[in-house]
Amino acid sequence: MRMYDLIEKKKNKKALSAKEIQWMIHQFTKGELPDYQMSAMLMAIYFQGLNEQETLDLTLAMRDSGDCLDLSGITGIKADKHSTGGVGDKISLILSPIIAALGIPMAKMSGRGLGHTGGTIDKLECFPGFTTALGKEQFIQNVNTIKLAIAGQTANLAPADKKLYALRDVTATVDQMSLIASSIMSKKLALGSDVIVLDVKTGSGAFMQQFSDAKALAKMMVSIGTMAGRKTSAVITDMDQPLGNAVGNSLEVIEAINALSGNGPADVMEVVYALGAEILILSGAAKKDDAVEKIKTCITDGLAIQKFSEFIKAQGGDASFVFHTEKFLQAKYKMKVAAPKEGFVQKICAKEVGSVCMMLGGGREKKEDVIDPSVGIYLLKKRGSFVQKEETLAYVFANDKSKGEAAVRDMIHSYTIGKDAPEQEQMIKAVIHSAQ
Amino acid sequence: MRMYDLIEKKKNKKALSAKEIQWMIHQFTKGELPDYQMSAMLMAIYFQGLNEQETLDLTLAMRDSGDCLDLSGITGIKADKHSTGGVGDKISLILSPIIAALGIPMAKMSGRGLGHTGGTIDKLECFPGFTTALGKEQFIQNVNTIKLAIAGQTANLAPADKKLYALRDVTATVDQMSLIASSIMSKKLALGSDVIVLDVKTGSGAFMQQFSDAKALAKMMVSIGTMAGRKTSAVITDMDQPLGNAVGNSLEVIEAINALSGNGPADVMEVVYALGAEILILSGAAKKDDAVEKIKTCITDGLAIQKFSEFIKAQGGDASFVFHTEKFLQAKYKMKVAAPKEGFVQKICAKEVGSVCMMLGGGREKKEDVIDPSVGIYLLKKRGSFVQKEETLAYVFANDKSKGEAAVRDMIHSYTIGKDAPEQEQMIKAVIHSAQ
Repeated sequence: MRMYDLIEKKKNKKALSAKEIQWMIHQFTKGELPDYQMSAMLMAIYFQGLNEQETLDLTLAMRDSGDCLDLSGITGIKADKHSTGGVGDKISLILSPIIAALGIPMAKMSGRGLGHTGGTIDKLECFPGFTTALGKEQFIQNVNTIKLAIAGQTANLAPADKKLYALRDVTATVDQMSLIASSIMSKKLALGSDVIVLDVKTGSGAFMQQFSDAKALAKMMVSIGTMAGRKTSAVITDMDQPLGNAVGNSLEVIEAINALSGNGPADVMEVVYALGAEILILSGAAKKDDAVEKIKTCITDGLAIQKFSEFIKAQGGDASFVFHTEKFLQAKYKMKVAAPKEGFVQKICAKEVGSVCMMLGGGREKKEDVIDPSVGIYLLKKRGSFVQKEETLAYVFANDKSKGEAAVRDMIHSYTIGKDAPEQEQMIKAVIHSAQ
Repeated sequence: MRMYDLIEKKKNKKALSAKEIQWMIHQFTKGELPDYQMSAMLMAIYFQGLNEQETLDLTLAMRDSGDCLDLSGITGIKADKHSTGGVGDKISLILSPIIAALGIPMAKMSGRGLGHTGGTIDKLECFPGFTTALGKEQFIQNVNTIKLAIAGQTANLAPADKKLYALRDVTATVDQMSLIASSIMSKKLALGSDVIVLDVKTGSGAFMQQFSDAKALAKMMVSIGTMAGRKTSAVITDMDQPLGNAVGNSLEVIEAINALSGNGPADVMEVVYALGAEILILSGAAKKDDAVEKIKTCITDGLAIQKFSEFIKAQGGDASFVFHTEKFLQAKYKMKVAAPKEGFVQKICAKEVGSVCMMLGGGREKKEDVIDPSVGIYLLKKRGSFVQKEETLAYVFANDKSKGEAAVRDMIHSYTIGKDAPEQEQMIKAVIHSAQ
């Protein structure tokens, strides 16, 4: 087989066979396919696309490029959740203990990643002592005991995807639906979960800004998961303004703790209910009618926050922080973002708020960057709120005064205030189930 | 400037500026642009194209990536000719001495290249002693004295093109019109000729199989040459069957000698007249009415063959071979290709005949391959001939018996013989002049 012929084939919009895709990914992972041929292929795929079968084959080939985590030592139907990412997205922190408290094992692997805030792991590390460096046995034992463990991605999961993503990132070939879907799903499938629920974000702060794109991606991923034998569904949720009120690592942890204690922001809770219900239904633990109710009860009964505390402790963290959030490291400066005029908040650009958080030191631009857990933004006013001139829209938390001042200026720009009340946006835009 | 942004721009069908193209080619030539980014760009260009200005800018950037040969030491209007290549193409060997004999300086650089036969230089090296390793001074002195010199491409001409072509060759991005045109023209423009006449081949044995593609390429190259200040035109000629009767290095040299002596095959002479007339007209040495007549007289008067002999001698070759072609190295075996049935020759697949010559050892697949000058094919019957069963269609010249036998079998397949006489193909399909 020659890579040249495969590039030529795709260039001419012909479908690649499973064997061809397997060979290509295998050679590429081994370092025996030059990057320049793979990048020509990626650009050809950008223009000519991959069909459903090719997308599945690519996903499976990438899954099989490294280790697959065997979760057969865990009893019960195991669930996993994935988000395509957005600003203020702390859903995993809230949802995982709830699902675990309802008796469904959650064996999660999580990355640090790049972005305006850290990943789930970075956020959990706001608890002193918390570690995700669990050995495989410890990981499985924790899930069997308390139904929840989150490990850092130490295993060699889907290395082909890692290598391919790095190449896409420098050749302007990231924004292709099949490549995005196969990248996400190859890592999900390398874990042996039975149920996969995807949170596909859409809006200005999401990768998929258009609803139609988000829907297409969701459908593609659900189809891949289903064809690979997993119960998979996707929820498309709004990411036009930041999710919840907190953006920043420890700020988001505190918001998650409040949510688990029954004081979560409405938009956050809507997403938690929708995703949680999907997991419960697919796992067979609830019916459509009572799924949300079960989640609510789990919170009001205190089981959710208790499970969270148990989980933090099981992974070495200081669980006293769960009930004493004032213990988290505080930023040096808390600065007011004042409304420049009276009117309705018509829009808060999620992308800009993300950039502000990054600039304050709350995110990572390069892998080596160190995250400042205490900085961030707390939004008091969200879309639809009526504000007086000079009223506080948000607070900026900074450890550097001049960065804080710049953040305040940028935050004012991220708000659009006008005379008319905006139309209400639905948080849950669609739920995508398998067609089968 | 970031290559990522340029790829993204081209991906979105936006035009690159002259500065962007210059920067890209400069960085690439210096080795400071990774191949994987350039190949992604090439594939984006394949799908989104380059406009006329971008194509010119790319050509000039590649021309300027190395040395430009200063021909100001040569008196008179200097002419150059280029062919896009085909099977049995010995036109340069015939045309160059004719033009020189008519007083127009031809300062040619030629390569060896890969293909079913060698390049012009390989063919000239059939003369014992002949060399193209001329120093720059010798080269210019030869042109001033006898109006003709052909040097090997030793100068660092358009190194960006060389590097880019190598990358296109392994990433399935060779067949893009602007990339083809800029590749050819960057090398032509690096030489200081005043007049450039292009022979664009079309048909089964040509790179541009469709006439419409050949025409588009011809127009593009004429436009580039003209915009760069050179008098440029293109002749589109048939390459559906091999040109002339001889295919193979010394066989073609002998055919060229015959042509220069007034015994050339009709199809070969038609191409010589058409290209020669263009050179004479653009150089101001003849009018449209008398150009072909001048060429014919130059041959019948013996000036053309005398100039060829003079040229071979000036570059160290044994000119006695010109008048004693039996001196050229002979192949060991001369094998008959017999007609399998009676009928009209409807088609001779030029591409297949080229492959046969290559297989016999007459061409180069890799740069390191050594060419066997004596092998090849001599076609007695061409398109339109009526043949009896078992009549000789062609001879195969081989130095290896089993290869010769395989060549005979393949040659039979390259002929299509049928009941009806084929329609006559025009040798000269179009002449493309500058629109200005």
